[in-house]
Amino acid sequence: MEILVRRGFIWGPSPEIYKGLAGFYDFGPLGKLVKNEVEDFLRRKFMDFGFYEVECPTIMPRIVWEASGHLERFVDPMTKCEKCNSIYRADHLIKERKGKEPKSMEEMRKEIKEIKCPKCGSLLKEVIPYNLMIKTTIGLDKEAYLRPETATTTYLLFPRLFQFFRKKLPIKVFQLGKAYRNEISPRQGVIRMREFTQIEAQMFLKKEQEYEFEVPESDLPLMPYKEKKVLNIPLKEALKRGYVKKPAFAWCLYVTNDIVKEMGFREYRFRQHEPEERAHYADDAWDVEVKIGDDWVEVCGVHDRTDYDLSRHSKFSGVRMEVDGEVPQVLEIAFGSERLVYALLVNSVREEKERVVMGLKPQFAPIKVAVFPLVERGKLVEKAKGVLKEIACLHPYYDEKGSIGRRYRRQDEIGTPFCVTIDHQTLEDDTVTVRERDSMKQERVKINELKGYLLQRITFL
Amino acid sequence: MEILVRRGFIWGPSPEIYKGLAGFYDFGPLGKLVKNEVEDFLRRKFMDFGFYEVECPTIMPRIVWEASGHLERFVDPMTKCEKCNSIYRADHLIKERKGKEPKSMEEMRKEIKEIKCPKCGSLLKEVIPYNLMIKTTIGLDKEAYLRPETATTTYLLFPRLFQFFRKKLPIKVFQLGKAYRNEISPRQGVIRMREFTQIEAQMFLKKEQEYEFEVPESDLPLMPYKEKKVLNIPLKEALKRGYVKKPAFAWCLYVTNDIVKEMGFREYRFRQHEPEERAHYADDAWDVEVKIGDDWVEVCGVHDRTDYDLSRHSKFSGVRMEVDGEVPQVLEIAFGSERLVYALLVNSVREEKERVVMGLKPQFAPIKVAVFPLVERGKLVEKAKGVLKEIACLHPYYDEKGSIGRRYRRQDEIGTPFCVTIDHQTLEDDTVTVRERDSMKQERVKINELKGYLLQRITFL
Repeated sequence: MEILVRRGFIWGPSPEIYKGLAGFYDFGPLGKLVKNEVEDFLRRKFMDFGFYEVECPTIMPRIVWEASGHLERFVDPMTKCEKCNSIYRADHLIKERKGKEPKSMEEMRKEIKEIKCPKCGSLLKEVIPYNLMIKTTIGLDKEAYLRPETATTTYLLFPRLFQFFRKKLPIKVFQLGKAYRNEISPRQGVIRMREFTQIEAQMFLKKEQEYEFEVPESDLPLMPYKEKKVLNIPLKEALKRGYVKKPAFAWCLYVTNDIVKEMGFREYRFRQHEPEERAHYADDAWDVEVKIGDDWVEVCGVHDRTDYDLSRHSKFSGVRMEVDGEVPQVLEIAFGSERLVYALLVNSVREEKERVVMGLKPQFAPIKVAVFPLVERGKLVEKAKGVLKEIACLHPYYDEKGSIGRRYRRQDEIGTPFCVTIDHQTLEDDTVTVRERDSMKQERVKINELKGYLLQRITFL
Repeated sequence: MEILVRRGFIWGPSPEIYKGLAGFYDFGPLGKLVKNEVEDFLRRKFMDFGFYEVECPTIMPRIVWEASGHLERFVDPMTKCEKCNSIYRADHLIKERKGKEPKSMEEMRKEIKEIKCPKCGSLLKEVIPYNLMIKTTIGLDKEAYLRPETATTTYLLFPRLFQFFRKKLPIKVFQLGKAYRNEISPRQGVIRMREFTQIEAQMFLKKEQEYEFEVPESDLPLMPYKEKKVLNIPLKEALKRGYVKKPAFAWCLYVTNDIVKEMGFREYRFRQHEPEERAHYADDAWDVEVKIGDDWVEVCGVHDRTDYDLSRHSKFSGVRMEVDGEVPQVLEIAFGSERLVYALLVNSVREEKERVVMGLKPQFAPIKVAVFPLVERGKLVEKAKGVLKEIACLHPYYDEKGSIGRRYRRQDEIGTPFCVTIDHQTLEDDTVTVRERDSMKQERVKINELKGYLLQRITFL
């Protein structure tokens, strides 16, 4: 994490100059470039799979969240020290102290009385359900909330989408945008934020269509909740064994796997939720978890939301949402953008003898190419400016200060896949040295062929 | 606007099924594709001009907005009917009824007493300053506000950015993201929203650097406030005549003009603010206004914010922000994303004898290419699926229903620049008909050359 802060990827908690607000972070110039690449990649992938994007407001009136169930059920158990006013998440605290996950509110209320406040040592007393929604007011008096997920706002469009897609199901849409949760005591940096970015894809379909999907041949690292271990098995086998109930849901797992694999993650698994672990709207749920250090971190959730959402919104709004007499089912693939970016960055840093290398795929690297004149003055600088113009569309980074070795190492650290050096030979034959990050191999390339050479290696690798 | 709703560009007020909240809108599949193209274009342009992107939270604690001056001064004059509780913006109401813009709170208080409530006819009584900030609470009790502009959040990063850019000014950064304003009574659709997207570029520089910029030769449609009319004059002439004070500010106008022109806007002007019209932080301000119907609509503001922001945040945070003993100046280019999209869409619709055409540049068109088999069944459909695969990276739209003429017209309406038809000749010689939107000319192209043919005409035209 230190290198990410120092090199301008992620800063915070934000606003730093005012001591920060827990759970809020800034993406600096390099972090933002990676985040854009990741989000563009996910956009493109979902479009490849036939999803269209929509954008809805992040603020919605109270009735939406009554209907969605979030006002009633989107709660975490909180405990507050009556002596020093410190606030904790009761389940986390109990797990930390007792080594076991409490399963019910009742159990937590019993356990918490034996635990002391980590800050002042007084005994804790109560566990209170704490709603995670962030509240505000629109106009003078209209109660409203910041959305805790993009999904609900997408569902509200169903009648419009049904028209747009000419009344044919399945309908596939996704939304990329901010969501907000008033976490009790956010820790873990950008893994648990109060403001974060989701990329959530939704598929509306009929019950019978859930059984009509063709499931491609593909082995996935599945960890069904009954098995408690990862099985690398074909999706079709998972269906046969009943780990996955519906072919359409299996297709969603396939899409998710395709995305995660293409991003370059190696160690990841699909962990199925225990029935009691699922969100209030889910009939089945699998998290994609990637390994960061010793921890498994959730970066995506695949949910079978059944007809819960559309039924509720139909009931609360009075707008009919049936298709051929039945309310459509919803399957969802929900990625967290910041977690993906963080996992990618942290997992691609490696230390070698003389350098630190961030081994990102070129397509996710914040800077694609750096241009260095061998020395700081004179004709080489002039020549370098010409090269910069030649490859301007790649937004090259320019650096003329310090030894070449030092400049290479600065770029290795931030993952720049190619460095272009302009040296004395350049003045003679119009070639430059292109140095590749991972192999450190150098190759001489003609200036007028440089753009094509780089583009070919950078795009969609 | 009707066509934009019907064809899936913009829906609202959102959430429609719950009757909507004034000032909030949804972007449907086609609108979102255009919005992405516009935002990607602006990103690329700002990067071409050397700006780096950052991303900051949309929620910031109270102290930030005390420092920025928004809590104190970001207010609109409101009047409320004491009988029917209707709420109006006092200045708008006065202008509507009396035909003149009130200049001071005092004047408004006098004028409002002669105006009747448009709804119930009672006389209005008071004008009250109404703050546009949207308030919330983080944690249990931390007062916070949704940002009314991205700019302030960018300024808070100055100490980090100064390190990142290796302590060299000018520093150029931009931010693209949501901003929120609790407008009193939003009308005008997506022109005045309570939640909207800004793309705001900031330049931090020293006072002397403001006079060091090279200003390119370029004629701009400038409307200096003293002249009250548009002068098409070179920027250098505008500097000489004193309409623009600083070369660096003139450069910002140049960048802005380059962007607006390349987007394809024809009727636009740079309108300079009257001194009393400027925001509390501005020393000079020019709006870019584009013509929509009979109205001039602001889509961008270029502001000289002086050292106001950094001085205030330095004072309120206690963090020193001087460079060589002086607090840096800030120049800003602030675009509104939804307004740009709306203006582009509305201005490119034209009605011809037999069709409605949306004449967007191919790069901004939501769908780049549509693929039609001449008839709905058999070999042509099979062949069409092959063509779809061939050009899958362009995310083609597929349609097999209805007459070809009708299918062309549907695409014309949403601006699709190319339609590809698979007909009987295709089965013989592997060529397809490519029909161009504006000229309606048709050309036969070989399937294996189609991708290159389309890419060349679609990208960066």
